[in-house]
Amino acid sequence: MPQLEGFAAPFTVTGRSALVPALPWHYSGDLLTVEYRTDPANVRAVLPDDLELAAEEPGAVAMIWADWQSCSDSFEELLDPARSQYKEAFVVVRCQFQGTTYSRCVFIWVTTDFAIARGLHQGYPKKLGSIYQTRPMPHGKAAPRVRAGGMFGASLAAYDHRLATARITLAAPSQTNGFVNALPMLHHRQVRAIERGAGWALDEVVTMRGQDPDVGPAWKADAELELFDSPWDELASALPVLEIISGYYRQVGVSWNGGTTLAHR
Amino acid sequence: MPQLEGFAAPFTVTGRSALVPALPWHYSGDLLTVEYRTDPANVRAVLPDDLELAAEEPGAVAMIWADWQSCSDSFEELLDPARSQYKEAFVVVRCQFQGTTYSRCVFIWVTTDFAIARGLHQGYPKKLGSIYQTRPMPHGKAAPRVRAGGMFGASLAAYDHRLATARITLAAPSQTNGFVNALPMLHHRQVRAIERGAGWALDEVVTMRGQDPDVGPAWKADAELELFDSPWDELASALPVLEIISGYYRQVGVSWNGGTTLAHR
Amino acid sequence: MPQLEGFAAPFTVTGRSALVPALPWHYSGDLLTVEYRTDPANVRAVLPDDLELAAEEPGAVAMIWADWQSCSDSFEELLDPARSQYKEAFVVVRCQFQGTTYSRCVFIWVTTDFAIARGLHQGYPKKLGSIYQTRPMPHGKAAPRVRAGGMFGASLAAYDHRLATARITLAAPSQTNGFVNALPMLHHRQVRAIERGAGWALDEVVTMRGQDPDVGPAWKADAELELFDSPWDELASALPVLEIISGYYRQVGVSWNGGTTLAHR
Amino acid sequence: MPQLEGFAAPFTVTGRSALVPALPWHYSGDLLTVEYRTDPANVRAVLPDDLELAAEEPGAVAMIWADWQSCSDSFEELLDPARSQYKEAFVVVRCQFQGTTYSRCVFIWVTTDFAIARGLHQGYPKKLGSIYQTRPMPHGKAAPRVRAGGMFGASLAAYDHRLATARITLAAPSQTNGFVNALPMLHHRQVRAIERGAGWALDEVVTMRGQDPDVGPAWKADAELELFDSPWDELASALPVLEIISGYYRQVGVSWNGGTTLAHR
Repeated sequence: MPQLEGFAAPFTVTGRSALVPALPWHYSGDLLTVEYRTDPANVRAVLPDDLELAAEEPGAVAMIWADWQSCSDSFEELLDPARSQYKEAFVVVRCQFQGTTYSRCVFIWVTTDFAIARGLHQGYPKKLGSIYQTRPMPHGKAAPRVRAGGMFGASLAAYDHRLATARITLAAPSQTNGFVNALPMLHHRQVRAIERGAGWALDEVVTMRGQDPDVGPAWKADAELELFDSPWDELASALPVLEIISGYYRQVGVSWNGGTTLAHR
Repeated sequence: MPQLEGFAAPFTVTGRSALVPALPWHYSGDLLTVEYRTDPANVRAVLPDDLELAAEEPGAVAMIWADWQSCSDSFEELLDPARSQYKEAFVVVRCQFQGTTYSRCVFIWVTTDFAIARGLHQGYPKKLGSIYQTRPMPHGKAAPRVRAGGMFGASLAAYDHRLATARITLAAPSQTNGFVNALPMLHHRQVRAIERGAGWALDEVVTMRGQDPDVGPAWKADAELELFDSPWDELASALPVLEIISGYYRQVGVSWNGGTTLAHR
Repeated sequence: MPQLEGFAAPFTVTGRSALVPALPWHYSGDLLTVEYRTDPANVRAVLPDDLELAAEEPGAVAMIWADWQSCSDSFEELLDPARSQYKEAFVVVRCQFQGTTYSRCVFIWVTTDFAIARGLHQGYPKKLGSIYQTRPMPHGKAAPRVRAGGMFGASLAAYDHRLATARITLAAPSQTNGFVNALPMLHHRQVRAIERGAGWALDEVVTMRGQDPDVGPAWKADAELELFDSPWDELASALPVLEIISGYYRQVGVSWNGGTTLAHR
Repeated sequence: MPQLEGFAAPFTVTGRSALVPALPWHYSGDLLTVEYRTDPANVRAVLPDDLELAAEEPGAVAMIWADWQSCSDSFEELLDPARSQYKEAFVVVRCQFQGTTYSRCVFIWVTTDFAIARGLHQGYPKKLGSIYQTRPMPHGKAAPRVRAGGMFGASLAAYDHRLATARITLAAPSQTNGFVNALPMLHHRQVRAIERGAGWALDEVVTMRGQDPDVGPAWKADAELELFDSPWDELASALPVLEIISGYYRQVGVSWNGGTTLAHR
């Protein structure tokens, strides 16, 4: 009898049809970050009740745009770039679980199906969006350079409603790329039972972090961020901007090779 | 402490951001079907080992295009149609589980995120694709009517590779819309553990069927179907067409309100 | 020497690569219309100076969504529906030229390249947009019927900025599908010289109308319309809504076979 | 009376709605080129009869992918990057007109409306396509660097039919970025009269070239190129690959500020 292979469905004898390839997954990309403060009660309201607010800066939020290429260990995806390129925009807060402080993604939009599927595996609450981010290029007048004065814009829309617009101007080299998205991630992986109203078939708490970081210099930036709601998304109302902390910009590489289950609920 | 609401992530106090609304889900759409025979060994090769081939016509396959609107019980999605319209193309075979014969979707492509998320809940192996299907309209020369002689085309592409092309010509009214996709569905819902190589965190067998069908007349049709592979999808190689059985066309309405768990593995 | 063929570029020996096929062009589709009044000075401000306002209802505007299939006399496009299906949203006013009253399209967004190319031939000021319109279907709960009480929504976005949202509820059969888009069209076809600042290489006034109409019953509808600006589009600011006149809904078929040059400027 | 402004339609009092901004236009981007030889008779067959083949290498063809940002002198487009980013894939041959040798674009696909509109102004035979090109990035395993051994892939599809796939591996620095697309461009700008079958309303020959080039090092590359036809596009049949000349890769900046009319026909 044939054996079905594949990291994720659909499964076939070769495993070649799988939406997600086997681990590890490699990423190269550009990160545009705007960190801001909201009322900590807003952060509390998007955390499940087994989590607590971070002890310091509990109202800190990071909204991050990322322009990625990604691939498996075969690197084949890179040569059919429709299979490797995607963008994402995501919102990160911090939280405490069993006494340790983590980063946690509470909203995220991506542009491809393989990114959705990887995110579901990892516990990211992924949706599709239309995402744009100014790209640095080394020549000509129609692109910023990654240096002081470089200006970058970014936008996010879903179902043809604009949800976020950001603009940053690089100011000076930075020791970090921000502090909100700097910790291991803590996510819940939850799948409802197929019976209506019957509770969770899968309900667990996991943590994970990247491997083999290969990062460029980080930049601090002056930043503007506008958030909007739509009938289907609560970004402005859930985590409104009280005060900008800072913008950041960094080009990075990272790999991902699995995480750790912390609790079955 | 605020309570998080929503059928699927992201969860918020209102539940309004959830990618998938609460049950029931309602659908209206047009179904273009081509049923064909492949070698039963090909069907066997896309079934997990706890399933068996159907006793009759074990090599029968249905490739189906569907042009849908869908909504929740609020019906709000219908008035922001970017949230309700989508297309799908999917491949159905039959199988036996514990002595009962079921339909089973083995490949499926859709055009929106909410369709992906609903499908993952139901055990469909969903990917994104670009999907087109000729639409019947009541007036003018640029649309077929749903009557004898009406010609409809359909196409499926993923990652800019054409995977399937179909053409049907309606021939005569039919008692059925085909037999391959006519049974309750049997799906496996499987989520890998977050640890690399650690087996399944969720692994179960579920069944489901639609409710409250409101269907139009079914039509038999002369049919052509071409399948293709890409580096990322095995449609032509996994389930090649040996012989066309028939085409079908039907406009339908249906609702979905949950399923039943048959086994935890 | 080979002869280059094709209605529009690119030209080849077969003519098969042409973005636009030879005339006539056939259309089948659904029209959702909202007519409203703006200050006549706003209409005046989007007309070139060789035109005058209409004598009656000079401030009337129609915003129209259309969900089309279109094809050439070969009808081949209908069976590769990626080549025949598109949507458009457009804004029509009326004007006088040399003593005759015409309809005139002042803003228009479409979803495909062949629709852009046809529009440029006809003098429509076409852009790409993302366009949605609720579709009537005959079965199920997830679609309105074309009858009293049927509710339809529509949206338009460009560059991920929402530009217009409409909702209509069919009220009663109507003698007409509105009066603003009911006259022959008057358009300017203008192409700048390739030299910077050197004036027009083509500058002419043309008129045209459809042929062989095959139309369904028209419906009057209660209507809501919201318009928005973006940095790249002036819809709300150019033609703001003072007062809704009425909504309309009609399914139609029509063909187009050329127009008439009224003036070379 | 208000004055209508704008480089291209739609025209408004502010000019802000124009699909194309005023000159000059600035570009920054990455160029991936594959030069090859076809039978010179194939090149002859895509040239109008007032042109002749180039005296040397008359069968040379360049297929080029470009990943662009572009903007006007306001640079505003760069901060709403949905308005500035696009990709194109195009096919260039050489020709003689009145004794001078030029480059000429005979097929081109782009991803945005503003790129289509600029191309129509310049005489490019633009269509929409879905275009991907591996992007170099400075960090991580999921992106090549612009250096020997760097591997880049590219693809083109239109109406969900794959039309071209290329792969190059950078081999060594090069004196040039190829010779086929290295001359001033010669294009025909042609608009049919609005009357069916009545000839050209605009028919002229223009030339143009970029300004203010700011270019990075050019690389020669080993190259593979596969071309395909679809029902709507003749790439493989019109200009089949007999022999690869070379691949090239270069990051560039350039501006455009108008051209010169050579002939009215």
